[in-house]
Amino acid sequence: MSSIEEESTATEAELTRQLNNWLERVEPTDDAVRSEALAYIDTLTKPPGSLGGIEQLVVDLAGITREVKPKVSPAAVIVMAADHGIAVEGVSAYPQEVTAQMVANFLQGGAAINVFARQIGAEVTVVDMGVAANLEAWTPKDTMTRLELHKIRKGTANMLSEAAMTRSEAITAILVGVEIAENAIKRGAKCIIPGEMGIGNTTSSSAIVALLSGHSVEAVTGPGTGIEGERLLFKQRLIEKAIALHLPDQKDGLDVLMKVGGLEIAGITGLIIGAAVYRIPVLLDGFICGAAALVARSLNLYTVDYMVAGHLSLEPGHRIVLEVLGKKPLLQLQLRLGEGSGAALAYPLLEAASRMISEMATFQSAGISDSN
Amino acid sequence: MSSIEEESTATEAELTRQLNNWLERVEPTDDAVRSEALAYIDTLTKPPGSLGGIEQLVVDLAGITREVKPKVSPAAVIVMAADHGIAVEGVSAYPQEVTAQMVANFLQGGAAINVFARQIGAEVTVVDMGVAANLEAWTPKDTMTRLELHKIRKGTANMLSEAAMTRSEAITAILVGVEIAENAIKRGAKCIIPGEMGIGNTTSSSAIVALLSGHSVEAVTGPGTGIEGERLLFKQRLIEKAIALHLPDQKDGLDVLMKVGGLEIAGITGLIIGAAVYRIPVLLDGFICGAAALVARSLNLYTVDYMVAGHLSLEPGHRIVLEVLGKKPLLQLQLRLGEGSGAALAYPLLEAASRMISEMATFQSAGISDSN
Repeated sequence: MSSIEEESTATEAELTRQLNNWLERVEPTDDAVRSEALAYIDTLTKPPGSLGGIEQLVVDLAGITREVKPKVSPAAVIVMAADHGIAVEGVSAYPQEVTAQMVANFLQGGAAINVFARQIGAEVTVVDMGVAANLEAWTPKDTMTRLELHKIRKGTANMLSEAAMTRSEAITAILVGVEIAENAIKRGAKCIIPGEMGIGNTTSSSAIVALLSGHSVEAVTGPGTGIEGERLLFKQRLIEKAIALHLPDQKDGLDVLMKVGGLEIAGITGLIIGAAVYRIPVLLDGFICGAAALVARSLNLYTVDYMVAGHLSLEPGHRIVLEVLGKKPLLQLQLRLGEGSGAALAYPLLEAASRMISEMATFQSAGISDSN
Repeated sequence: MSSIEEESTATEAELTRQLNNWLERVEPTDDAVRSEALAYIDTLTKPPGSLGGIEQLVVDLAGITREVKPKVSPAAVIVMAADHGIAVEGVSAYPQEVTAQMVANFLQGGAAINVFARQIGAEVTVVDMGVAANLEAWTPKDTMTRLELHKIRKGTANMLSEAAMTRSEAITAILVGVEIAENAIKRGAKCIIPGEMGIGNTTSSSAIVALLSGHSVEAVTGPGTGIEGERLLFKQRLIEKAIALHLPDQKDGLDVLMKVGGLEIAGITGLIIGAAVYRIPVLLDGFICGAAALVARSLNLYTVDYMVAGHLSLEPGHRIVLEVLGKKPLLQLQLRLGEGSGAALAYPLLEAASRMISEMATFQSAGISDSN
């Protein structure tokens, strides 16, 4: 073993130790608080169960936060951005430079996620996890947007020829995500909304979801930004090739992530772990968030309890993701944009659930006759 | 003809003339503005069509308002309250006095609709259309809630023995609704959210929906506040009896409304007509709003273009209502509360659609590469 290899191994061991420290802090949500919330809801001035999904949601939030009257405001939107080596193969409808261009758009407040975050009063933190451009000199023009620089490498390697990243890089990216969630929570966030930008990332996500769900590449791979027909078949063949080349260990989310994943996906996995450690809900967006959620699930099953599914994406693999996670989506609006946009659109329902249990009168306090 | 009958006929003729004046002012929505909005959306910084239902929604809002960048804020929540003679038969899980008790709860700001209206910054106007109690001395304790007294009669008659109301009363109730919408719009409302309270009103609504949709009573009648089994079958039999007694003209929404309807349902029909006259969206809640919408549709087909379906209720007849209206619901959250609560929960999606088209950058303004 050369000294460089020794150092690399030592580093990986230390990173693994740090990640495991976080993972060990994730505990199951609290069933006693769930039950208490459920019982309290039935004292509120409405027929029992008549607020359906909103009641189920607030019970979940109570279990997550350990508060019968959980608070979810303010939310923090955290958009992880990175490039993908596979993009050179033409798997996306857009060229790779759009990743950096969209980061610039985020910083100017002009993207969909800025608009929806503004509506819900959420700060947007854009994180350079591995954009293939120099963003050091970039500054937000929008007052509700922050930029954090944590570039791990200038995009992943092309998974058709080598692993997308090293195991150390994958763990480092996850740790960045955990720490960014931690910082957001320390600044007051009561709900984490992960988003992403990365041309080529539905390709990586399809590979991850196929491996971690056990479904075929064909079943989980869709149009992404909008390719179809021959180009979609080509995308599916590339993913099958990459999987055949690396044969990732389907029982090891980290192995899958490093070989066919992305740096922004790893970052979101970290955000999920961070939210779970600090017992706040993480509101999932679409397919790419879903891939990151499956990696988190593979690392610690309890993380799933902290996830709320914002919506069902039009991307076909997303339904499979939600089945594996056992989650019902709040919205079904044929969205397929990403950036965290679908989760931000769903967030007012979390806020409504929180307000319902906190602000509604009880039958007793309002002096209303009970059902007969 | 006695002089009383002559006067009554003259009054009905005058009321009919007033209603027809309003109905004649409802025009189709504007396809040119719809097309303009559709074209503009494709210049925004996102893959074309990737915001799915939100894009369809803003196109509809553009057609309704005749503005490419439609505004929907502030919304006005208007809760119509009235009692039902049929309630004495035990068709509801709650006794009749709950209607007035819930009005008191609205005025104290403790009901679900108060909580959700507060979240979306909407004023709540509670209208006594026909509560079987004296509310003259009642005043709101909640600063965002108003009370308007327009009692037409103390609840409808029991439709098992006589028509729920006279034709003049039905028209008067509709006219009250139109004028309340008009006043709200003059105070600045850009979106009307109708709600209702009335013990027994799913029974009236089921009768209306069966008649105006052509479906069987069995198919459209559900648990309401929560009855099941024998009691549900009993409710269905009563509705069938009432229909057999009155044989309302299924081509005449007014005839249906007066014979088996409710005063709050008539009021909501008026709100819908008012919103359509003034070219602003009316965001429909659940099954009872749906019955009122079918009456409005029967009076003027163009009113349908101004309706947005907030959600799909758990009440089985609601799916049929939305099919007849040709509307896709924004939410599917197994709600069955009423009061306007489901529409208020959906409203942030209208706000998001409005903000999307108003605030997002275009590919050109953001300097982003187009798809290849």
